[in-house]
Amino acid sequence: MHTVIIGGSFGGLNVAYDLRRLLPHKSHKITLISAEPRFIFIPSLPWVTMGSKTIDDISFELKGPLNSKRIEFIEATVTSIDPEKNQVHTPAETIDYDCLVIATGHRSANEAVPGLGPFDGPGHSLMSPPEAEEAHEAWTTFLENPGPMVIGCAPGASCLGPAYEFLFEAHHALKKRKLCHKAPMTFITPEPFLGHFGVGGFGKIRQYLESELEDRDIRYHTSAAITTITGNSVETADGSVFESRFSLVIPPLAGVTAVAEAPGLGNPKGFIPVDEHYRHTTFSNIYVVGVAVALPPVEDTPVPVNFPKTGHMTEQMARIAANNIAADVLGTQKTTHELSVECIMDMGNEAAHMVADPVRPPRNVSRLSHGKRWLIAKRFFARYYLWKLRLGANKSPKWVW
Amino acid sequence: MHTVIIGGSFGGLNVAYDLRRLLPHKSHKITLISAEPRFIFIPSLPWVTMGSKTIDDISFELKGPLNSKRIEFIEATVTSIDPEKNQVHTPAETIDYDCLVIATGHRSANEAVPGLGPFDGPGHSLMSPPEAEEAHEAWTTFLENPGPMVIGCAPGASCLGPAYEFLFEAHHALKKRKLCHKAPMTFITPEPFLGHFGVGGFGKIRQYLESELEDRDIRYHTSAAITTITGNSVETADGSVFESRFSLVIPPLAGVTAVAEAPGLGNPKGFIPVDEHYRHTTFSNIYVVGVAVALPPVEDTPVPVNFPKTGHMTEQMARIAANNIAADVLGTQKTTHELSVECIMDMGNEAAHMVADPVRPPRNVSRLSHGKRWLIAKRFFARYYLWKLRLGANKSPKWVW
Amino acid sequence: MHTVIIGGSFGGLNVAYDLRRLLPHKSHKITLISAEPRFIFIPSLPWVTMGSKTIDDISFELKGPLNSKRIEFIEATVTSIDPEKNQVHTPAETIDYDCLVIATGHRSANEAVPGLGPFDGPGHSLMSPPEAEEAHEAWTTFLENPGPMVIGCAPGASCLGPAYEFLFEAHHALKKRKLCHKAPMTFITPEPFLGHFGVGGFGKIRQYLESELEDRDIRYHTSAAITTITGNSVETADGSVFESRFSLVIPPLAGVTAVAEAPGLGNPKGFIPVDEHYRHTTFSNIYVVGVAVALPPVEDTPVPVNFPKTGHMTEQMARIAANNIAADVLGTQKTTHELSVECIMDMGNEAAHMVADPVRPPRNVSRLSHGKRWLIAKRFFARYYLWKLRLGANKSPKWVW
Repeated sequence: MHTVIIGGSFGGLNVAYDLRRLLPHKSHKITLISAEPRFIFIPSLPWVTMGSKTIDDISFELKGPLNSKRIEFIEATVTSIDPEKNQVHTPAETIDYDCLVIATGHRSANEAVPGLGPFDGPGHSLMSPPEAEEAHEAWTTFLENPGPMVIGCAPGASCLGPAYEFLFEAHHALKKRKLCHKAPMTFITPEPFLGHFGVGGFGKIRQYLESELEDRDIRYHTSAAITTITGNSVETADGSVFESRFSLVIPPLAGVTAVAEAPGLGNPKGFIPVDEHYRHTTFSNIYVVGVAVALPPVEDTPVPVNFPKTGHMTEQMARIAANNIAADVLGTQKTTHELSVECIMDMGNEAAHMVADPVRPPRNVSRLSHGKRWLIAKRFFARYYLWKLRLGANKSPKWVW
Repeated sequence: MHTVIIGGSFGGLNVAYDLRRLLPHKSHKITLISAEPRFIFIPSLPWVTMGSKTIDDISFELKGPLNSKRIEFIEATVTSIDPEKNQVHTPAETIDYDCLVIATGHRSANEAVPGLGPFDGPGHSLMSPPEAEEAHEAWTTFLENPGPMVIGCAPGASCLGPAYEFLFEAHHALKKRKLCHKAPMTFITPEPFLGHFGVGGFGKIRQYLESELEDRDIRYHTSAAITTITGNSVETADGSVFESRFSLVIPPLAGVTAVAEAPGLGNPKGFIPVDEHYRHTTFSNIYVVGVAVALPPVEDTPVPVNFPKTGHMTEQMARIAANNIAADVLGTQKTTHELSVECIMDMGNEAAHMVADPVRPPRNVSRLSHGKRWLIAKRFFARYYLWKLRLGANKSPKWVW
Repeated sequence: MHTVIIGGSFGGLNVAYDLRRLLPHKSHKITLISAEPRFIFIPSLPWVTMGSKTIDDISFELKGPLNSKRIEFIEATVTSIDPEKNQVHTPAETIDYDCLVIATGHRSANEAVPGLGPFDGPGHSLMSPPEAEEAHEAWTTFLENPGPMVIGCAPGASCLGPAYEFLFEAHHALKKRKLCHKAPMTFITPEPFLGHFGVGGFGKIRQYLESELEDRDIRYHTSAAITTITGNSVETADGSVFESRFSLVIPPLAGVTAVAEAPGLGNPKGFIPVDEHYRHTTFSNIYVVGVAVALPPVEDTPVPVNFPKTGHMTEQMARIAANNIAADVLGTQKTTHELSVECIMDMGNEAAHMVADPVRPPRNVSRLSHGKRWLIAKRFFARYYLWKLRLGANKSPKWVW
């Protein structure tokens, strides 16, 4: 039997390791296909943008660790998926599968906001390594001669944490250089209130973030829809124009092209419907984990905000999917559980630690705390997680994000 | 001389005890008429709804304590009052009085909100013992299979504290059972801001309650007017429809029928106008205390919120009225003072203690504190108060509510 | 060479002392002209209104200290300025200058709000010693029989701190006398949020002031435009009428008449445009410091709020201007720096300490703290500053306002 996994980030890698642990390698072949030859710790991209880390610092080569676990690795872009024929196509070959795991993550739908580049327009982003590196260069140049800045999220964005992190880290960097007075910052978000994060908030976070932004002289606009980014401004749907010489805006996400174009696989945005076991609702030999999964927003809001899928949540999905694939094979009972989330938001001089279980409100557990200790914890965790995953640790760390 | 008191709750019982202490029993007969044979500690009804207390736990028979103090007790419903003839009618007899004390409390105007039962519609309430017991049964059933809930107050409500208490206690009960995620809670209130309570707030309560509700993932809507309750929804005047499988809504209050129908006695709602001595503005031998008194709201608000009358305030009115009745008889000086209020709101895992003196803002004293200690104090006080009142303590406890 | 300084408050006196220190008196004559023979510590006027200080307590005669430093003093009202002829006119004489320093402060534009007296209408103010004394008398009378009060700022006001101070001090005075319940207080301000102060706020001040006002049962209205004051009300542009038996409203400010009427000197409001060295943009031998300087608001707000100029800021301007005048004379390099601000707001039972550097957001330093210690510091500083300035201290205290 041959299981093919597309994607080498949190979802793909964790499914691969877990499956390898659960299924005997003699009878079960596992292949992981990824266009990116490295595992990259995506949550650290804001640090790449700020220049405190490089991509090398936050990544490792996939091939060695995978091969040492008897998982085949193919570095290739999947150009199309044929769920009827159980085939995956790359430019070089066609691969047959018995079971397919789609962990392809997202495509940044930067086209949703005219002017949101970074390579074809003035707006910056940090949703992928090249974007984070481009933003880092632009940020370095900007720091030499700072001016008004807009940081925010586009309507329909789901991954809002990095916008807050960049906001706080940028303010901290300016403050260390005593340059705050040259760089008025505006934060523009589709969220109905600060700290919604697409999950309806975490504990008492609204009052906390309001006071933290006000304390830093950062003006904020909630339920606001960014429509256009130009070289010196950001415009919103109500006709407001905000001066900005450095604009970093988190786009809405979409599914990758190969998924979006496969008939019957995903929804119009390219996200894939699954059942509670993360199995495709139509094709019973396809599992999907991570950002590729179609999950509805927690609530209707005046400006759309979508449901986030963090690395921590993707890892939980990977664990559930791997167990259920093995259950299919071994004939044991399928299982599932609701997703929880735990994350640490870097705020420059301190960090906020958030826990929500389940992710969707109302929750049984919902906590917010903050302090310098969480900043240290976040830095330590990023290194620890990379180390564990490079070793192919078969138990994922239960630690915080 | 014969003084007749209608009502056996905080107002009637305290007036009876105080008058008996102030006037010699040889020349002054005192009769208390009540349809309810028990004194029931109404502030504990939310605990009955939650199931932590029964009505028996929070009540005692009136007859024994009253008779032991040489106060006659008649268990009967007053069907009409004739203030011109100085007569009170019950189904069985006509009673003549020289002085009448009306301490009849409220009638729940559940008809103000179509669907607000509890015995003829799906909405629950807890403003009387049978309603609290009905709500307890419904709550017990609901806990077995929880779903979306709406808790709130109808436009014109005056007794808002129990809605907050039930909200916090219900959340606490769900949290203990790890069921919060199955029961999204919405709080809908006519108040212009959380914690207004019909008295313009207590100290810094707005920010406190906003953060406490947000911390519990409870969505809230202020200046909102509930119009209809159905079996699976609560609707408001702006056209919003909130899904709800358990709806508990505090109604506006009205005066009891016998008062409302007596010509010249009360206003159209059945509340009775009094002077600063709690004497009727027209009939000089009638005194009124407690919820039956007509008191204006503290301010105009976008959606009407009326002025509350707590047990603590009723007791103060009873004391003033009793002293002034005695002053009439003995020819001494009448006295009065402004009402203050002290109360403890049960929040499930802790309680908030509020003091306002005078009740109406602006005040000379306005305090809010919170902690577990207040929860213990509240539980202790409920038992202590019952014990004191059953003994007919001639000094009311100055303790907190 | 003759330098003439108009104004004997923070700006004029500090320029005079600094110039005298920087320029040899044999070749450079310095004359200070002031209609007011005393230096008055204007920030203490709220204390005069409350009655805890008299004008004598917070002032000293200018003549002695100035003459002892070989600075000529003329007590006279400047009736006109002729910048083309380098002449200043008083009723008694015409004075020629080589260099002119305008430190004339403000004229209260009380005419902007019909009914804002205090000498020709019912509204009170405290922007000048006679107004503060008038308000004190009215306050003393009001305290004997208090009623509803409105305290606030008119649209376009720039000096908002005293309104907050009077608000908190008045509440404190009422509370000490247990009179709060007789005097409902309403605060009406053009600011978009409490604590904006014309500078975009200080740190986390919004949430702090909201809770402090709510704690005192003080109702507040932001983005509100006072239009009329009558003997028993204050009206706003949205048609609201607030009952008020004592109305204290801070007016917008304008330049003094002699400046407003001098062709080419100031803008229509009578404020004077300067370059970054506080030199007039047209007349190179005229410097301007303090309230007389034209400075734009920090941002557009729904109701206009102008940029404040505190004594602390005026002193910084005076220092910069004096150094640059000396640089002109001595042929050294001109210098300047951005203004910072530090102030202490008396809140009756405690005080809030605010620091912003620079004044205009965004800032590199922005702090808010509060406590009784700041109240003690404020009281001490007022006396210390007077003592230093009467001695003609050539180093200004770096202490707080």
